[in-house]
Amino acid sequence: MSKELKPKLENENNNSTQRIALGIEYNGTNFFGWQQQGNLRTGQKILEEALTKVAAHQVKTICAGRTDKGVHAREQVVHFNTSANRDDTAWILGVNSYLPQDISVKWIRKVDSSFNARLSAVKRHYRYFIYNNLTRPAILAHHVTWHYKKLSIDKMQLGAEYLLGKHDFSSFRSADCQAKTTARFIETIKFTKQTDDIFYIDIIANAFLHHMVRNIVGVLLQVGEDKQRPEWIEQVLFARNRKAASITADPNGLYLWQVYY
Amino acid sequence: MSKELKPKLENENNNSTQRIALGIEYNGTNFFGWQQQGNLRTGQKILEEALTKVAAHQVKTICAGRTDKGVHAREQVVHFNTSANRDDTAWILGVNSYLPQDISVKWIRKVDSSFNARLSAVKRHYRYFIYNNLTRPAILAHHVTWHYKKLSIDKMQLGAEYLLGKHDFSSFRSADCQAKTTARFIETIKFTKQTDDIFYIDIIANAFLHHMVRNIVGVLLQVGEDKQRPEWIEQVLFARNRKAASITADPNGLYLWQVYY
Repeated sequence: MSKELKPKLENENNNSTQRIALGIEYNGTNFFGWQQQGNLRTGQKILEEALTKVAAHQVKTICAGRTDKGVHAREQVVHFNTSANRDDTAWILGVNSYLPQDISVKWIRKVDSSFNARLSAVKRHYRYFIYNNLTRPAILAHHVTWHYKKLSIDKMQLGAEYLLGKHDFSSFRSADCQAKTTARFIETIKFTKQTDDIFYIDIIANAFLHHMVRNIVGVLLQVGEDKQRPEWIEQVLFARNRKAASITADPNGLYLWQVYY
Repeated sequence: MSKELKPKLENENNNSTQRIALGIEYNGTNFFGWQQQGNLRTGQKILEEALTKVAAHQVKTICAGRTDKGVHAREQVVHFNTSANRDDTAWILGVNSYLPQDISVKWIRKVDSSFNARLSAVKRHYRYFIYNNLTRPAILAHHVTWHYKKLSIDKMQLGAEYLLGKHDFSSFRSADCQAKTTARFIETIKFTKQTDDIFYIDIIANAFLHHMVRNIVGVLLQVGEDKQRPEWIEQVLFARNRKAASITADPNGLYLWQVYY
């Protein structure tokens, strides 16, 4: 992991309660998303159970980004309060010893009590991997989104440029989205070819509405396979209405890549 | 897939029986290896069941490399005979429609009856991925081998050079190895850093003994973490005895990468 990944708000704390931030990696395939939902196997539930064992008291966490069912995280960030006094190795290796194979603590920072994994985050970076080949992937079946029709990255990039900057992204939110405001600032949408078959899209914004990344990728795929022209993206954006383009790309190619503080 | 991956022995065949070669990709995590073993879930069993449905007669396959339990293939090659007259799309997309998510037909070639996926192969290329980080991987848990102790790629490369060329590889075969001869020719052992945490080792040889790649990687890891000096690899090789170094690296980082004809 790079230094940048770690929250910068580090501080010694003399209270008996310490706030801790963790970087978490997970394969979302077998999770019902991040957020606790009763007894379903979610990232939050599995992590809190392991943290509770190490802390020897009930631990509740707040996360930077509530990923959906099937979405992965290279770096989810959470914080929690604890009265337990453990060294960094105990928090990382100890917690990992209680976690299953598909989720892992990657780093720890002791942070000031003003740090909040969700509210202190200033930017979120998502990466979406597309496998563009006539035949479906087997090795990376759950790690990339398969699209068998030939895609033009150049056209997708052209369409994406209409979305840069601050806009009302109502057309790209899910029906379940509970956000009070719909303006978001997209700083970057960048396409990178990784292999002959695989490319990825980096999307960085201050924050995202529910399903916003997957809805953006969904419309860009229409442009990529020439069903729509790049200019259509602007029409969808200006409609400010989810019905303008009800296309949600699959979760399995999506990764919460990095959170900036 | 590159052109090189495809067997070159292509020919029209006027007999009612046609020989077909297929390129197969699979994630070995949930397979008990490639080769048929009664009712266990093996690659061969699952593939032959799908081929039998498309051909509408019993199909038996011969493969280029019998991968172990947990080992993946970017490109396994098989051949089989069929009296069914199907176009390429039926063989690829039709068979894939009967295959589960973790195995996929990537290409087809109609070949001359002299072509044999195993006997015609002149070189096999394996790639082994190592994740060298203090904390374990979650996203790629089944796709890389985790090694938490710091490894020196330079020292591993130095040690590997003793293995290049034609040698008796008895020290690197498993107790179960049934090969009649133990001389093999290793053309390439090359280390490549992919990310800060991940590097891979390409090993290309005319053929391999049972567990040979994993046993080679096992001893190289000893050198990489400074438990042994690079020169020790030569001692192990010259011992011509499996007991000289009974270390087998995990299967999950290993891929049958390409077969040359």
